[in-house]
Formats: sequence, structure tokens, C-alpha cells
Amino acid sequence: MVDIAVIGAGPAGYSAAVSARKRGKSVAVIGQNTGWLARAERIDNYPGLPGVSGPALLEAMRDQAGQMGAQLLPGVVHTVVPLGESFGLSLGAEFVEARRVILCTGAKQPKLLPGEAELLGRGVSYCGTCDGMLYRGKSVAVIGAGAEAVGEANFLAGLCSHVDYFGKEDEALDPRIALRKEKPEAIVGGARAEGIRAGGQEIAYDGVFIFREAMALSALIPGLEMDGAFIRVDRRMKTNIPGIYAAGDCTGLPLQVAKAVGEGCVAGLEAAQG
Amino acid sequence: MVDIAVIGAGPAGYSAAVSARKRGKSVAVIGQNTGWLARAERIDNYPGLPGVSGPALLEAMRDQAGQMGAQLLPGVVHTVVPLGESFGLSLGAEFVEARRVILCTGAKQPKLLPGEAELLGRGVSYCGTCDGMLYRGKSVAVIGAGAEAVGEANFLAGLCSHVDYFGKEDEALDPRIALRKEKPEAIVGGARAEGIRAGGQEIAYDGVFIFREAMALSALIPGLEMDGAFIRVDRRMKTNIPGIYAAGDCTGLPLQVAKAVGEGCVAGLEAAQG
Repeated sequence: MVDIAVIGAGPAGYSAAVSARKRGKSVAVIGQNTGWLARAERIDNYPGLPGVSGPALLEAMRDQAGQMGAQLLPGVVHTVVPLGESFGLSLGAEFVEARRVILCTGAKQPKLLPGEAELLGRGVSYCGTCDGMLYRGKSVAVIGAGAEAVGEANFLAGLCSHVDYFGKEDEALDPRIALRKEKPEAIVGGARAEGIRAGGQEIAYDGVFIFREAMALSALIPGLEMDGAFIRVDRRMKTNIPGIYAAGDCTGLPLQVAKAVGEGCVAGLEAAQG
Repeated sequence: MVDIAVIGAGPAGYSAAVSARKRGKSVAVIGQNTGWLARAERIDNYPGLPGVSGPALLEAMRDQAGQMGAQLLPGVVHTVVPLGESFGLSLGAEFVEARRVILCTGAKQPKLLPGEAELLGRGVSYCGTCDGMLYRGKSVAVIGAGAEAVGEANFLAGLCSHVDYFGKEDEALDPRIALRKEKPEAIVGGARAEGIRAGGQEIAYDGVFIFREAMALSALIPGLEMDGAFIRVDRRMKTNIPGIYAAGDCTGLPLQVAKAVGEGCVAGLEAAQG
């Protein structure tokens, strides 16, 4: 059990961590930064460090958080489950229990395929466990990456007449599944999804399942109130769920390091006393 | 005319300045930092600069703002006057016109004397010009510092039977005014102010006028909506007055450098596009 779990290893997350550590709380920062900052050549408007590179700034912040005693855990959090007085976070095989959770998941939303949003719920699904039965005896495509996608594809292979898997080769894939190397370009269909376009050709399916490395926030924490693509927070960085805070790019524009560290600081201190 | 005037030369103000400069706006930062940060020995939780001293951090931020082309003006802003499409800021003899104003005035509130708040409006006044006539022919104390206090005391000397001035010797003081060296300790009185306690003794006056170096925000910008001692802002750092933004310690807790730079960044970008 830690006092505070921070989901996301960017400026907001590290800022939350150092401020919460200053208050003597135990903190775990979960994630690996793959966002825009990790590729930023030069930041001019972070006060105090003019012209710093994104990777150098991230490294300085990570070192600082580590030196102040925050646990730094790689991994992707797939679910946050309320456990009464705390929350349970599953990271694949790992499990972290925390009294408070701070979401610093960045602005990177899953990049949708053309047709995906339009056909979601009408032949496009993000959840094999939920919707697999609808495709019993039918043919489906699975678009995905990571261990979760493989597991879901394997689940579907037990239900569906045919499963094509668009993703990386994985020896854990059920042998009934056909691996496709083409890159999916769009979901096609009219009233319902009828297939996908990949490698320049259209391939017919009864359903399309999509799994990505980062969970959509709505799936990560059901009931989390959004404001468009961003998490709704108040000035204390509280979300609508007691005990869950959010900070940084995930709460909205501007997508700036200074704004992220500011919100992280507030969220860290609020969670420390909350 | 500048695009943006920033009142206050701390982390929030410099952050607002560098972000607005990145958007190509002309910016003046007005003030000299005398707040807590200028005396802070060590800051541990400013992300990216662990263990930095307050003065070193302020200097780095000031240099950065200057190098990015912000005008850095010393001085105290006494009034902000709406001029239709812009605002006029008076700094003693100087005058700055700006399309937008960002308040980064810090959390330092004037430290009130015992009895001051209770008796304000009942024998205690912050405005000689406004309330002087109420004390025509009566005896008053002026507690103050700076050129404004002397001017107000001189104005009162023309109205009142007697003016005692508690403050530094100043050759501009009207010769009818008696300079008192005692340090004021409290305002005394019951239903109304009856005098002040200074140097261990109570001295009777009909009224007490108090002037300080930093203007109370309510006097600086009449109509500015407060939330207790802090300026009320929304998530875009907008105050209730269109064209006026606020950021940093003046908007509320926590009083942290990271929170201040975050809010300054947001306010600077908002003012640049607002």
C-alpha cells in the first residue's frame, strides 16, 4: 500500500510526486514517458531552465523524484478499481494499492482510424469480453498491440468462426488466429462496420475489435467525468471521484510543461492532505 | 502601449512573460520581488531544479524573461484604470498602457494592526482623498510608508486640526504635521476608533489613516472579485474583469513556485490570445 499512486511519468507526475514526498507521503510513479516532451528538442518557456531539451528536463525531474524517495515503476495501468478506502491498480501481472490516485496520463489520446468513432458500437468494439458473444460464429478483425490485445484475440478465437489479428507476431497468439501484416487504414461500412481497409484493399468482417497500449480513460476509470477529450477537474485538481485527482496535459490546454508542473504540485499536495 | 502588463516580478509573472513572449506579444513585467521566495534558502520541489535557492531561481527566471524580450520595470503600481480597449497603470510618475493585465502580486497581504480590520470604516480609513472631509477640524494619525502616504498626510494637514505621522522622516512632509517615531502597535477604540497604541502608550485621535507600499487589491482594481484574501479566477486564470488575469500566490493556496509558474504560463497564453 502506498499513500499516493501517480499514473503517468511526465512533468505533472513528477511534480506531484516531489510535492507529496515533501509532505512525507509514500508515492509510486507509474509509467514511462513516451509523450511529446520525450522528443522535444528545446523548451524556451519553462521558467528557470531556458532552452532545456525535453529529454534532459524529463531526466532531471525523474532523478529528483527518485532521489526524494518516490518509487518509479514502469508499466501500463489497465484498471483502477475502488476498494472502499483505497484503490487497486493493475499493471499487467503487478498490482498496486494506493489511498489516493493522481492521473497524469498526458494529452495523447488513442489516434482513431477513419470510421472508428462513427462505427463504435455498430460493429466496432473495444472490449472482447463485453461484446465477444455478439460475434459468436462470425468473422472478426482484431487490431491491437500488447499483451492485452493478444489475450482478447485468443478469447475471441474461442467464439468466432475466424479471427484476423493485425498486430505484431506473438507466440502467445492462439493458432486458430491468422496474423495479418498489413497496416489497418480505416474501418469501412455503412450502417454497421463491414470490414477494414488495410494494405490498400478492403477486407470484410462482421466485427472489428481494437485494443491499444494506453487505455482510454473512460475504460481505465469508469465514471470519470470528462470535459470533451480532457478530464474535468476543479481548481484543487479533484476529479468527480473522491480520492482521484488529475494534473497536466490530461486536464486540458495549454499543453505546457509549466502548466503541468503547477497542476502536479497542487494535486500532490491536495492528495497528501486529502 | 504594450500588449500585456504583468504586475509582480515573481515566478508567476516571469512565467506569464516568457509564455506571452513566445506568442510574440510585447510584455512589461512591473515590480521588484520582495516576497518569500527572495529569502528562501532552498527549494526542493521545483521540478527540474532540485535544491535551488530562492534568489538563484528568481534571477534565472528574470534573466530568461529579459533575454526573451520582456521589459522589466521596477516600481509599484498604484492604480489600474480601464480605458475602453486597454488599461492605464500608474507607477508613481510613470504610466504604462496595456491591452491586457496579469496580476501576479503574491500572497503578501498588508499585515493589519490589531483593531484595524474591526474599526475600518469606523474611524480607520485607507483613503485620505475619500474620507478626509469627515475629519475636518479634527485630529488624525497617519500610519504609512512611501511617497503616497506623505502626499495623503499633506492633504489631511490642510483639513484637520492636527496630523501625527507615524513613518519615516520625509522632507516633503507638510510642516504642520508632527512626525512620530513610535511604532504603531494597535488601533484602539470601541464602537469607533479612538486612537492608537504606540510605544506602549495610547494616543487619542478622531481618525486613523493607513497607507502601505503595496496597494490592497480592492483599491488597485475596484470591482475585482475576491475569494477571501485571494483573487477569484477560473481555470483559464481569468478574473471577473474582462482583460484582467491573475496567477500565482495571489490566486490562492498552495503558495508554491510550481503552482505559480503553471498559472503564469496559462495566464500568459490566455492573455496573448484573449
